[in-house]
Amino acid sequence: MNRELMIEAVQAQMPNKRWIHVKGVMSSSVTLAKQFGADVEKAELAALLHDYCKYWPVDRQAQVLIDSGMAGDLLENDKQLWHGPAAACFVQAEFGIEDIEVLDAIRYHTSGRVDMTLLDKIVCLADYIEPGRDFPEVDKIRKKAENSLEKALIAGFDSTLLFLISKKQRIYPLTLLARNALIEEISK
Amino acid sequence: MNRELMIEAVQAQMPNKRWIHVKGVMSSSVTLAKQFGADVEKAELAALLHDYCKYWPVDRQAQVLIDSGMAGDLLENDKQLWHGPAAACFVQAEFGIEDIEVLDAIRYHTSGRVDMTLLDKIVCLADYIEPGRDFPEVDKIRKKAENSLEKALIAGFDSTLLFLISKKQRIYPLTLLARNALIEEISK
Repeated sequence: MNRELMIEAVQAQMPNKRWIHVKGVMSSSVTLAKQFGADVEKAELAALLHDYCKYWPVDRQAQVLIDSGMAGDLLENDKQLWHGPAAACFVQAEFGIEDIEVLDAIRYHTSGRVDMTLLDKIVCLADYIEPGRDFPEVDKIRKKAENSLEKALIAGFDSTLLFLISKKQRIYPLTLLARNALIEEISK
Repeated sequence: MNRELMIEAVQAQMPNKRWIHVKGVMSSSVTLAKQFGADVEKAELAALLHDYCKYWPVDRQAQVLIDSGMAGDLLENDKQLWHGPAAACFVQAEFGIEDIEVLDAIRYHTSGRVDMTLLDKIVCLADYIEPGRDFPEVDKIRKKAENSLEKALIAGFDSTLLFLISKKQRIYPLTLLARNALIEEISK
């Protein structure tokens, strides 16, 4: 599927407000890819597709995960975590995308993971700091992103942890492991 | 070993300031055990012994863990987490304490764990709220302990998470899993 058709397909899955967010993540991913030496086209493609399933009914997201054998522990965890892995499974099966770096950046854009690739980090961070985002710590994270992908992403995950703590909600263990691994990485 | 000799042995392992803390944890553990229907003697014994190895050189703590085959992932994690498991191993081997509830309450008093027992919760919470403790959230945690062991302990773990986040330090995954399990438990 060519880029234009893919853009049309993405737009058809979501309200205009979310499409504006996706364009923001594409723009920030391209900027970060240039800044930190990642593949710009892959970064933009992963960003375009990262929220493909975000507005699907959760049952449909779950079904994609089950059909792909990729549900793992996700279905026992917060539904907000399903749309990234569901999108990775869907675009692989339906759009024939086979680039594992692109698929993983889509899959882990919300949760993060241990040993994140450069592309994982870029899309995940872009999702935190795209121009439309407005939450208490966002400017601090944008500032850190000028110098360190890892420090910015740690600050991003910390903002998620602080939010979940304030709401007395469960924290997805993989996000904690991702944060711990980044702290380890920058301490070396 | 009788209670008096054990008290002497504990006192000999630590400066007086820490012994005052241990007495505080004993007193709070007894109060919580009465309040929430746990075995008062076990609670007091676990509290007495919980910091037995706290002031040992870390190499000695590590050696006890290695000798007992209980090091697990501990030695790759924060040294502050070693003294509880080391104390459980030591008092089992040297004092002949075989009560698994007491040993586990000692072992997990810093980290917590998934599916904490009543005694685990009591000693862990007492360690947060004993009368000598003074940190920003302590009064809020004491207030919660009037009604719910689990809610107070979640607030205790949250104070630890907030501290580690503020210091940009790694968070021990088991503590997160303990907190998640308590949130699950009170939601049922």
